[in-house]
Amino acid sequence: LSWDLEAIDTPALIADADIVEQNLARMQAAADAAGLHMWPHTKTHKLPFLAERQMALGAEGITVSKLGEAEVMRDAGFTRILLHYPPLGEAKARRLAALVARGAEMRVALDSTEAADTVARAADMAGGSIDILVEIDPGMHRVGRQPGPEVLDLARYVAERPGLRFLGLTSYAGHISAAPDEAGKEGVLQHEIDVLGAERERLERAGLPPAVVSVGGTHHGARMDRLRNATDVRPGTYVYNDRNILAGDSCRPEDLAAAVLVTVVSRNASWAVVDGGSKAFSFDTSPLGGYGLVPGQPELSLDRMNEEHGVLVWPEGAAGPRVGERLRIVPNHICATVNLHDRVFFHRGGLVERVLPVAGRGRMQ
Amino acid sequence: LSWDLEAIDTPALIADADIVEQNLARMQAAADAAGLHMWPHTKTHKLPFLAERQMALGAEGITVSKLGEAEVMRDAGFTRILLHYPPLGEAKARRLAALVARGAEMRVALDSTEAADTVARAADMAGGSIDILVEIDPGMHRVGRQPGPEVLDLARYVAERPGLRFLGLTSYAGHISAAPDEAGKEGVLQHEIDVLGAERERLERAGLPPAVVSVGGTHHGARMDRLRNATDVRPGTYVYNDRNILAGDSCRPEDLAAAVLVTVVSRNASWAVVDGGSKAFSFDTSPLGGYGLVPGQPELSLDRMNEEHGVLVWPEGAAGPRVGERLRIVPNHICATVNLHDRVFFHRGGLVERVLPVAGRGRMQ
Repeated sequence: LSWDLEAIDTPALIADADIVEQNLARMQAAADAAGLHMWPHTKTHKLPFLAERQMALGAEGITVSKLGEAEVMRDAGFTRILLHYPPLGEAKARRLAALVARGAEMRVALDSTEAADTVARAADMAGGSIDILVEIDPGMHRVGRQPGPEVLDLARYVAERPGLRFLGLTSYAGHISAAPDEAGKEGVLQHEIDVLGAERERLERAGLPPAVVSVGGTHHGARMDRLRNATDVRPGTYVYNDRNILAGDSCRPEDLAAAVLVTVVSRNASWAVVDGGSKAFSFDTSPLGGYGLVPGQPELSLDRMNEEHGVLVWPEGAAGPRVGERLRIVPNHICATVNLHDRVFFHRGGLVERVLPVAGRGRMQ
Repeated sequence: LSWDLEAIDTPALIADADIVEQNLARMQAAADAAGLHMWPHTKTHKLPFLAERQMALGAEGITVSKLGEAEVMRDAGFTRILLHYPPLGEAKARRLAALVARGAEMRVALDSTEAADTVARAADMAGGSIDILVEIDPGMHRVGRQPGPEVLDLARYVAERPGLRFLGLTSYAGHISAAPDEAGKEGVLQHEIDVLGAERERLERAGLPPAVVSVGGTHHGARMDRLRNATDVRPGTYVYNDRNILAGDSCRPEDLAAAVLVTVVSRNASWAVVDGGSKAFSFDTSPLGGYGLVPGQPELSLDRMNEEHGVLVWPEGAAGPRVGERLRIVPNHICATVNLHDRVFFHRGGLVERVLPVAGRGRMQ
C-alpha cells in the first residue's frame, strides 16, 4: 500500500492537514479575541477527530444538525452538544432522551411549541432537563419565529415547561452568502444583530433574560468583531473552506484545505471529462457560476456535471488536460461534498497521513 | 419495532414495492417487444436485490458506472456486467483484473486509447479477455468519440490489442431530458440513431461489424420502438421514476415509486420547513422549477433547499401543512437521491416490507 497522495484511486476527498490546523486555530483565536464562545458546527466535517481538536483549542461545545450526528459524537465521548434543528415526533423524543440518559448536556434550538413538547417529552423520559434556544428568523425566511412578541411567547412557554430550561436566543442568517458585496454582508449582519438586540431587551423586560445569544456560521466567523449582542458563534465550513466561502471574501485562497482529487477520463477538442460529478461534488451552485475551482489552473472551468461526470472547459488556445491526468478541484460547498464521501484522506506534504471514515455521514434522521 | 410506514423516523427514502415491480415488468416487456436486450443501469438503485429481479425478468446483464458498483454486484453473484465508464490508471486496472479473475464477464465502454490500455493491462493481469464498446458522442458532448473516422480508428486499436475484444458501439444521449417537447426528444433520438447507423456501416465496410449497439436510458426506454440500429438498451431510472422522468413524459404519475418521507419541522405565515434538504433530495434541478412533487397536494411547492431544510410554499389562501405533519415528496432526480441514503424502505399497503442497505452507495471509485 502506497501512502503517496498521487497513488490513491479517484475520485477521492482529500484535505491538507496543515491548512485544516491553521483554519481551526485562527477561528478559535478570533472568537477568543471577540470574547465569544465557540460552538463549531460539526455538520461540515462529521468527524469526531476534528471535533476533538476543536474542543482542545477551546470550543465550549459542538453543534450538530441531526440527532444521528449527536449520537455519533456522544459515542465518541462528547457531552456538550447543541442540536440546532427542531426535533419533532416520538422517535426523535426517544433518541433525545437516550442521549440525555447517556450523559449528554443537550441544548436544542427550536421555534415552535410542538418542538418544545417533543423536547419536554424527551426530558421527562430521561428524568433530566434540556436547555432551549429559541430560534429567531433574521431575514433568511427558513426556520425561526418572526421577531416580535411571539418570541417572548415561545420563551415563556419553554420557561414554564417542566424539563425545559430557557437558555437564550439563536439565529442563522445564511442569506449573508447571497449578499453580492461586503456592504450587503454588513447589512445582513447589522439587521441580525439589531433583531437579536431588540428581542433580548424584550425578554429582559419580561424577566426572562437570555443567558446565551448564538449566531452562525463561517461568514460570521470571518467578521467576528461585528457580532455585538452575541455570546456564542457556530462556524462550520471554516475547517475546510470552499469556493463559495472564498467568493464571499470569508477566507483566502491559501485557506482552502479540501478538494476532490479526480482523473481526466475523456477529452475532445474543447472539453474534458473528469471522474467526479454531482455524486462526488454535489450540485450546489456558486455566484461565480460553475462547480469548482482548479487551484493553479484558473483557465479550467468545471462547467457542467452529471452524476459521475464533470465537464471541464477552457478558453480557445489553452491546452486543456490530457486523459489520465489527475487534478484537485475545490468544490463550491464542502459541507455537501463531505456528505457524499465515506472517507476523507488527510495529507501532509504529499503523503497521506490518515484516512478517516466520515462517521456522521448518512445519519440522516 | 413497528412496521407501519407512518412510524419510521424521517427523513427516509421509501419505495412502493408494487409500483417498482410494475415498472420492472413493463420495461422488460417493452424491450422484449422491440427485440432489444436489456442491460439495466443499476446506478439508480445500487441494490443487488433489484438487479436480481431485473435478471430474473430477462435482462441479459447489468450496467454499472463505477468499478466499486461492479464489485458489489460481483460479490452478490452477478457475472455479466457492463462498466459504462472509462477506467484509467493502475489502481483501476488491478481492480478490473480482480473482477475478471473472479469470473465476471466484463464489458467496458470507453472512448480513448488510454482507457483501452488500462483495460488491456487488466486483461493481461487476469489472463482473460474483456469486451469493449466504443463510445460515440451523440451530441451530448460528454464522453464519446466524435462521429467520423476516429471511431473506426479506436475500434481497430481495440481489435488489435491482445486481451481486448471489439464488441460494438455505445452512446448516451442524456440531453434528451433537456429537450423541451416530444418533437425535440424525437430529434435527439433520430440524430443518435442516425449517427450509430452511419458508424455501424463504416465499421462493417472496414470488416469490423459491431455485434452490439447499446443505447440508454429511461427516456429511450419509454420510446423503445424508435431505437432502430440498437441491439441493447440501458434504462436505469425507470425502476423508481422521478419528477424529471414525469416532466419528460417518460412515465405516468402512477409510476412514481419512490419518495422521501419528511416531517414539517417549522412553519410561518407563508412557508413551512421540512426535515429534508439537499442532503436528502440532492440539488438536481428540474425544467419545472423547484425540487420535488408532493403527490395529492399540487398546491405545495418545494421551492428552496439548504443542506437539511426544504422550504415549502403555497399560494395565498391555501392552508399549508402544520408542524409535525408528515409528507411524501418525489425528488427531481431519484438516482442522486438514492446516492444520499444508506437505506431504502420498501413498503406495500402502508407496511414496511423490507429495509435494504443501498449496497452500491459510496462506491465512488
